[in-house]
Amino acid sequence: MAKNFTTREENYSQWYNDLVIKADLAENSAVRGCMVIKPYGYAIWEKMQQALDAMFKETGHVNAYFPIFIPKSFFSKEASHVEGFAKECAVVTHYRLKNDPNGQGVVVDPEAKLEEELIVRPTSETIIWDTYRNWIQSYRDLPILVNQWANVVRWEMRTRLFLRTAEFLWQEGHTAHATSDEALSEARQMLDVYATFAEKWMAVPVLKGVKSPNERFAGAVETFCIEALMQDGKALQAGTSHFLGQNFAKAFDVKFLSRENQLDYVWATSWGVSTRLMGALIMSHSDDHGLVLPPKLAPIQVAIVPIYKKIEQLAPISEKVDSLINALKAKGISVKYDTRDSYTPGWKFNEYEFKGVPVRVAIGPRDLENGTAEVARRDLLTKEIVPLEQLEEHIINLLEQIQTNLFERAKEYRELNTKTADTWEDFIVRLDEGGFVKAHWDGTPETEQKIKELTKATIRLIPLEPEQEEGKCILTGNPSPHRVVFARAY
Amino acid sequence: MAKNFTTREENYSQWYNDLVIKADLAENSAVRGCMVIKPYGYAIWEKMQQALDAMFKETGHVNAYFPIFIPKSFFSKEASHVEGFAKECAVVTHYRLKNDPNGQGVVVDPEAKLEEELIVRPTSETIIWDTYRNWIQSYRDLPILVNQWANVVRWEMRTRLFLRTAEFLWQEGHTAHATSDEALSEARQMLDVYATFAEKWMAVPVLKGVKSPNERFAGAVETFCIEALMQDGKALQAGTSHFLGQNFAKAFDVKFLSRENQLDYVWATSWGVSTRLMGALIMSHSDDHGLVLPPKLAPIQVAIVPIYKKIEQLAPISEKVDSLINALKAKGISVKYDTRDSYTPGWKFNEYEFKGVPVRVAIGPRDLENGTAEVARRDLLTKEIVPLEQLEEHIINLLEQIQTNLFERAKEYRELNTKTADTWEDFIVRLDEGGFVKAHWDGTPETEQKIKELTKATIRLIPLEPEQEEGKCILTGNPSPHRVVFARAY
Repeated sequence: MAKNFTTREENYSQWYNDLVIKADLAENSAVRGCMVIKPYGYAIWEKMQQALDAMFKETGHVNAYFPIFIPKSFFSKEASHVEGFAKECAVVTHYRLKNDPNGQGVVVDPEAKLEEELIVRPTSETIIWDTYRNWIQSYRDLPILVNQWANVVRWEMRTRLFLRTAEFLWQEGHTAHATSDEALSEARQMLDVYATFAEKWMAVPVLKGVKSPNERFAGAVETFCIEALMQDGKALQAGTSHFLGQNFAKAFDVKFLSRENQLDYVWATSWGVSTRLMGALIMSHSDDHGLVLPPKLAPIQVAIVPIYKKIEQLAPISEKVDSLINALKAKGISVKYDTRDSYTPGWKFNEYEFKGVPVRVAIGPRDLENGTAEVARRDLLTKEIVPLEQLEEHIINLLEQIQTNLFERAKEYRELNTKTADTWEDFIVRLDEGGFVKAHWDGTPETEQKIKELTKATIRLIPLEPEQEEGKCILTGNPSPHRVVFARAY
Repeated sequence: MAKNFTTREENYSQWYNDLVIKADLAENSAVRGCMVIKPYGYAIWEKMQQALDAMFKETGHVNAYFPIFIPKSFFSKEASHVEGFAKECAVVTHYRLKNDPNGQGVVVDPEAKLEEELIVRPTSETIIWDTYRNWIQSYRDLPILVNQWANVVRWEMRTRLFLRTAEFLWQEGHTAHATSDEALSEARQMLDVYATFAEKWMAVPVLKGVKSPNERFAGAVETFCIEALMQDGKALQAGTSHFLGQNFAKAFDVKFLSRENQLDYVWATSWGVSTRLMGALIMSHSDDHGLVLPPKLAPIQVAIVPIYKKIEQLAPISEKVDSLINALKAKGISVKYDTRDSYTPGWKFNEYEFKGVPVRVAIGPRDLENGTAEVARRDLLTKEIVPLEQLEEHIINLLEQIQTNLFERAKEYRELNTKTADTWEDFIVRLDEGGFVKAHWDGTPETEQKIKELTKATIRLIPLEPEQEEGKCILTGNPSPHRVVFARAY
């Protein structure tokens, strides 16, 4: 499996690409910038979806579905939104093909031109708020707590599997509220949901904060975000939750009659995470031996490989293993018992290691004699001999340990790579070392922009409750009330 | 709820449209032909997805995701496929907008024209088989058993919510096999999966059969289908499963090395069901009081309405009801306890009736005194008084009874409306009565076409194992070995 596999040290970027391809997670398609998500990668995404969807429903949200196409004119209705989104997009101009009069395949039928072009959604605020206008009359119709699982398209020039693709899969929540406070706490709540998901399921520690105006979502009043640190010291924005104020309600004329019988514009939020999370997951835990997956998101949690030379040795192994498999499955653990005779045990070991299966069990005739099995854990690449009667409990504990260990390890890495800088020289050195750099900033978009031009680093977030500490801006020396978090980012 | 609600007798088509809108299932969007699936409608679709997805996985399939865009040239590679699909489709020609030089919103940037136009997928055989070429080298790589949940677009001129929309949601299975037999039995297996889903979950009885060449999927060697009969006597194709032979493997040059070391083209199937099933569900069971849902697909299976005048009467009701709710939820039954004080019990009764909630429980102070509750079943619109201690068991049994009753009722309707015809005159009379008409056909596409022109009826299917019965074609009098099933259809 791991042949021609670049190490992280050699070339992190190449390592990532190799891993995504060789672990059968995704590949580039015949359509520029669009990926094929392969079954193994999609199985991880499905686990993410299930966990997130359950959390959305627990917090009172329901799913719905809105059109993939948005009339071009909708984008012009929210002034900053159009700047952020309407530019790089897929435009549908015609609705019919016809046979090429020259006999060469099919051509676009010029007579089937749309009166108004349709944009393949890059995000759905506009079409959804155009719809909400008819759903909302009074405070009784509020709140609307809707989520959509969908594909979206943003025409990216430089694409990378999962991290930046022209088409990607995501969920987008779009909620409508009677008050500003309620909308704000919704946006904050969903940030917490995302942080919990990242830390408890993905085992990826995240910082929570607010974006600076330069990095804010196009059309938002405030953008909350979670930021994770990848193994190469670069930050990755793993989810955003936006307080949209009344911007979209005003753009699409969505008003409601309040309890006090006043007509007012509706308050909005939107929030989303995407298949980009797959990139964050891969780059947080994996190593030079391949993928490392947290047990809660692993499509196969336990792989059992029988070791035998003669086929008659298989039956007694299977007999021993059957009850273990049933016991684990009854506990909701996904087990693969790999009896394929077209592959050797060594090949299988490599395969499960490379694909990040958290626990691998090997059992052969000698183990049967001794009443033991060999158990390997993927995160530490260690093995131990476990008595058969303790195997079930051992595996269950081990899965929990691996989940915890991955999170702790990633957190330790992040803490080691979170530094402060108080001078420009120090700032540059810290940035070059990689990681988060806490530094003072004078609060102006101009300074932020200048720092970005000089260093390629951006303000990843302003902490939600920043420690008050007066200081001087790293670039201008102007006063600053607290530090913000800089990093170079994906 | 049911104000301005057309009866089926008055106008079946209008009744359907009213129902879809007023029961909050879906609505037309600002984009011609595209629908918004509202939360209540989407919750039913989610239940369908879950049941189908579990059945796909039980039969060994895995999910994956392929691009929404397909290069135009791909459609020309399979000769009959292009005729069937490439014509009415959404064509992406540009990838950028720019500010209108005249200051009016945004316009398509003429400089951002794609070299080759992209088609928004109407179905994914072409892009998937182009991908499979790289996945398949030898028999070891086979079978590939992949399914995709996705949105697709077909530019329909006359649209109806769920039944025929420009964009719809569906699943499409695409499998690759080493032998013709294996592919054929896969296609047959998935037909059985669809039939089981229709009958056991949707409570919709279906006929299984094969399509005549005129009705075959564009690019298929054989199309299997399930056909259901709606309450207005029209047939609805509820799912199709195609044996594609080697057509797509040849078009996309997908070969494999067999066990016998021979290079051969791969055998294929594809199969799909869509949000059209929502239309079949609605038109199979619902009545002039609104939606009727089979318990297995109802988002709310049991609605409990407390009856009280003074707020202090609510607490003792809630106390009694709480343990029932917990007991039902523990059994996986979805319960809504509706304590909203902004609506009257009468309003709530109407609402749950109109939205097809299978079981409604009402409980008030007098019930508490008597130790009883009133239980209403939606399918028969009957009520009965049930002792509280029997309530849980009663509800569980009732849900099963309703599921069975809906299926039996629909089946009885279908049997009453399945007739035979042996003369042209009789054939016309039977068709006008509505329902399936079993008649002889001479087996030629020309005759089928002629019958369609004369009667608007099509051959819905040729039975899988037709009863051998020699006869004469209803139109031409030419010999026929067995009857086929005709109907007017959605």
